Amino acid sequence: MNTIARPHPNYLRARQQSGQSDDPRGNALRLDAVPFRLASGAELAEVTVAYQTYGALNAEKTNAVLVTHALTGDQHVANPHPITGKEGWWESMVGPGKIVDTNRFFVICTNVLGGCLGTTGPKEINPATGHPYGVDFPVITIGDMVKLQAALLDQLGIADLFCVIGGSMGGMQVLEWAARYPERVFSAIPIATTARHSAQNIAFHEVGRQAIMADPNWRGGDYYGGFGPKAGLSVARMAAHITYLSEAGLHQKFGRKLQDREALTFGFDADFQIESYLRHQGSTFVERFDANSYLYITRAMDYFDLAADYGGLLANAFKGTKTQFCVVSFTSDWLYPTAESRAIVHALNAAAAQVSFLEFETDKGHDSFLLDVPEFHDVLRGFVGAAAAKRGI
Amino acid sequence: MNTIARPHPNYLRARQQSGQSDDPRGNALRLDAVPFRLASGAELAEVTVAYQTYGALNAEKTNAVLVTHALTGDQHVANPHPITGKEGWWESMVGPGKIVDTNRFFVICTNVLGGCLGTTGPKEINPATGHPYGVDFPVITIGDMVKLQAALLDQLGIADLFCVIGGSMGGMQVLEWAARYPERVFSAIPIATTARHSAQNIAFHEVGRQAIMADPNWRGGDYYGGFGPKAGLSVARMAAHITYLSEAGLHQKFGRKLQDREALTFGFDADFQIESYLRHQGSTFVERFDANSYLYITRAMDYFDLAADYGGLLANAFKGTKTQFCVVSFTSDWLYPTAESRAIVHALNAAAAQVSFLEFETDKGHDSFLLDVPEFHDVLRGFVGAAAAKRGI
Repeated sequence: MNTIARPHPNYLRARQQSGQSDDPRGNALRLDAVPFRLASGAELAEVTVAYQTYGALNAEKTNAVLVTHALTGDQHVANPHPITGKEGWWESMVGPGKIVDTNRFFVICTNVLGGCLGTTGPKEINPATGHPYGVDFPVITIGDMVKLQAALLDQLGIADLFCVIGGSMGGMQVLEWAARYPERVFSAIPIATTARHSAQNIAFHEVGRQAIMADPNWRGGDYYGGFGPKAGLSVARMAAHITYLSEAGLHQKFGRKLQDREALTFGFDADFQIESYLRHQGSTFVERFDANSYLYITRAMDYFDLAADYGGLLANAFKGTKTQFCVVSFTSDWLYPTAESRAIVHALNAAAAQVSFLEFETDKGHDSFLLDVPEFHDVLRGFVGAAAAKRGI
Repeated sequence: MNTIARPHPNYLRARQQSGQSDDPRGNALRLDAVPFRLASGAELAEVTVAYQTYGALNAEKTNAVLVTHALTGDQHVANPHPITGKEGWWESMVGPGKIVDTNRFFVICTNVLGGCLGTTGPKEINPATGHPYGVDFPVITIGDMVKLQAALLDQLGIADLFCVIGGSMGGMQVLEWAARYPERVFSAIPIATTARHSAQNIAFHEVGRQAIMADPNWRGGDYYGGFGPKAGLSVARMAAHITYLSEAGLHQKFGRKLQDREALTFGFDADFQIESYLRHQGSTFVERFDANSYLYITRAMDYFDLAADYGGLLANAFKGTKTQFCVVSFTSDWLYPTAESRAIVHALNAAAAQVSFLEFETDKGHDSFLLDVPEFHDVLRGFVGAAAAKRGI
């Protein structure tokens, strides 16, 4: 199912220049290995994986890099977005000459299971009914997302990965990859992430879910073809967005600055710049994201507790690993603070893994991983370069 | 307008025991000094102030203490709540033999202007139309709230206060009192508060307001007599409630504990205790609070910027003050972190005021001010006792 009626001209132009089709999903592959069994025990009879690739696989097939996306990301890492036309979400990191150098590496990014940009998820057609799944879609886990990525690589004939790299929920997938398929992962870079969702993390997600489900246009998840719970999804996005930024960063960027006015208006308009900024974040998000996907993906994140799958001890998840790890955190990230990365690093050390731990000073909060933080980029370039040399790429 | 049809039996019992009427507002006074002019320039032709008192005013009228409430608080500091029947919101602090000792002090607490428990606010009748104000109620400020409290005291013949004490928005009122009426305030105890709302503070409030206004049952604020925007208000409360607790406190209390189940259900029920806790916070709140009041009071807090009213320099607000200040913060309060209290203390010192600054170690977050934090109570008891001795009470 081609989910976007008319991709953005910027996307079409970029696709034509690289001689690719207009498909807004990038590439879409129907999985051969079905039914696809989920952690819940449920099975999907048909699965499509939408993904993007950049660069070329070398003859030895040793240069594949899997980039894993965050909650509201997608496969369009380094090309214009098919809906918004904006640049790819990680062009600061991925591209020709970038840290993840597409002249050197074969980069793959998949839209996660449960997503809304072409991979099977709640907005896609349920083959059993001929209608969109809605809330009949089974609840998924980070493990399910990773298992599907591995199945895609199997089908593409890519045995192992030079690197798996991602931030936030992308970092959870990196950890899950390293734990589940250690022999397939040469190096792993989990950034601004955690090995288990905290009570506060779950709490913020629950607010977002309740905002969506409280919207009468949600209609129990059966809103496709209708207006959809845009107001609820917008509120969910606004609440979440605050957690992606730091108090100091907000203060520096917005403070109490007024929006296009000289004085307070004594009303409920967006007097303050921070208010219009947040409203804008909400209203643009709903144009590109599916509310049910938001429910399913936040749930998968809340369920994430890697240690629980390995007898309650995180070190067990990495026992005997030969993967080289680079764990990254940011000082002002209060969503997944450095303490969470430290716990991962402790477990990796307990498992005798090779691990570098990097904490960067920034006031840009959780979103630092997406931004141009020079020291972060410089150091990561060194790590990736050294690992590539070791791998003989 | 008596806004509660049938007060809770616990409230009625307590009122009868103290020989008071059944009025759920406690006492209600029609202001003589009308029209009441607001900071916006708007005027209220009629104003009612609902308030509670505890203890007795001494002959010298030197023992009055004004307790100021937070965003979702009300005048029922130390008696059962007329709607919920639960104990007063600050019985840990106020009562016979407590720090604010009602055997010694005459304690007054008013429902703030814009509130929903009897003081004039958006749910009360607009005399110009005969219908509830709704969003025709003028936008108010913390200064307006304090000005109304002062007008009430004038009418009651109470010239000055031994102490003004409050936490959170209550602390903003304390600061406003000390700045606006320095000669009327012998001692001031602003707790867990700030002299100006930060971008992050405004952002969280804006999420709550958008959640309310996105609820179709809000009906542009004209919902009285109908169902009302309960779903939106509940989401607003859930988002706000997270900010009242600390990450560490949430971890300790809830962690990833499941709610009445052995394993994850792979659904959207409240699998985690933190989810059911938050949902409960939301659903009980809507039974006792008015959504429009939530809009107006959060707006007043966002507008609060005490320095701005005094030429941009906070110290100017306190120049020449003789009030004795005790500024209190809590280590795990990330809503109004210690840095905000420190800024107040710096300004007070710059103004050559007498000030004690107390930061208490706790993992209970912003809500610490409402809770039994022994060291906080011990030290505050000392401050209040010493000030009372100095005042000759």
